[in-house]
Amino acid sequence: MLSPSLEDYLEEVYRLSLNNKEIRVLDIATKLNVSSPSVVKALRKLNKQGYITYKKYEGIYLTEEGSNLGYLLVKRNTVLQEFLTVIYSQCDKEEEAEAMEHYLSSPTILAIENLVEFMNNNQDIQKSFMQFCKEKEKKHWSEGIEA
Amino acid sequence: MLSPSLEDYLEEVYRLSLNNKEIRVLDIATKLNVSSPSVVKALRKLNKQGYITYKKYEGIYLTEEGSNLGYLLVKRNTVLQEFLTVIYSQCDKEEEAEAMEHYLSSPTILAIENLVEFMNNNQDIQKSFMQFCKEKEKKHWSEGIEA
Repeated sequence: MLSPSLEDYLEEVYRLSLNNKEIRVLDIATKLNVSSPSVVKALRKLNKQGYITYKKYEGIYLTEEGSNLGYLLVKRNTVLQEFLTVIYSQCDKEEEAEAMEHYLSSPTILAIENLVEFMNNNQDIQKSFMQFCKEKEKKHWSEGIEA
Repeated sequence: MLSPSLEDYLEEVYRLSLNNKEIRVLDIATKLNVSSPSVVKALRKLNKQGYITYKKYEGIYLTEEGSNLGYLLVKRNTVLQEFLTVIYSQCDKEEEAEAMEHYLSSPTILAIENLVEFMNNNQDIQKSFMQFCKEKEKKHWSEGIEA
């Protein structure tokens, strides 16, 4: 099992691989807001664990295992961002999904995915939930005293 | 702001305070599955930060600030456990809520609380979501090929 930090690196390598361009250390460093030496250190670990092949000046390539896991990591992140949208959270969705993703169990991610699909399939319920949230925003309990 | 670990200690002290009995180091250690010296170390930090008063052989007492924060920590944990129930996650709810609670932003906890309230207010939607989950469990995509 990869550490949360290595999962982030592999996730990013996978994202960059989708562009069909050379994957560069600098691009990973910029995206994850870390130094190039930190990226190199992480890439060496991912190389050692069989998720990528990486040699200096020879490029970064995903192995089949790395590609499979990278796909799942990106999917998990996407599901969580969709969840935050569906529950109408006023947070920074990218940042929050990133904070959540490493600490959720598989059954909970599955349940969250079901919820997202259920809400997307039932736009009337989605709308009714949004309305419920808006009403709650507007109305404070102290208003009940004045009524 | 307290570290996730100190939040757990304060949360537990608050829970124990609700029993109206003396709060003992051993009870905290047992509940959090840690050693007594670890509890003492954490209690000293909470004492220093003004959340409890703690002196050896003199008992453990919450300050007003500690009581207020303890209440909110327990509430957050409860909301997350209710959320896991509402989305029908087949996880260990106590363990999962504990893993999630430290990494969620306020807007997301509010959104999750709204979702729980919305689902509890709309038992028909709750039932329809449960049905949706059960159908998904039963039906695998490969069955569509055979149909």
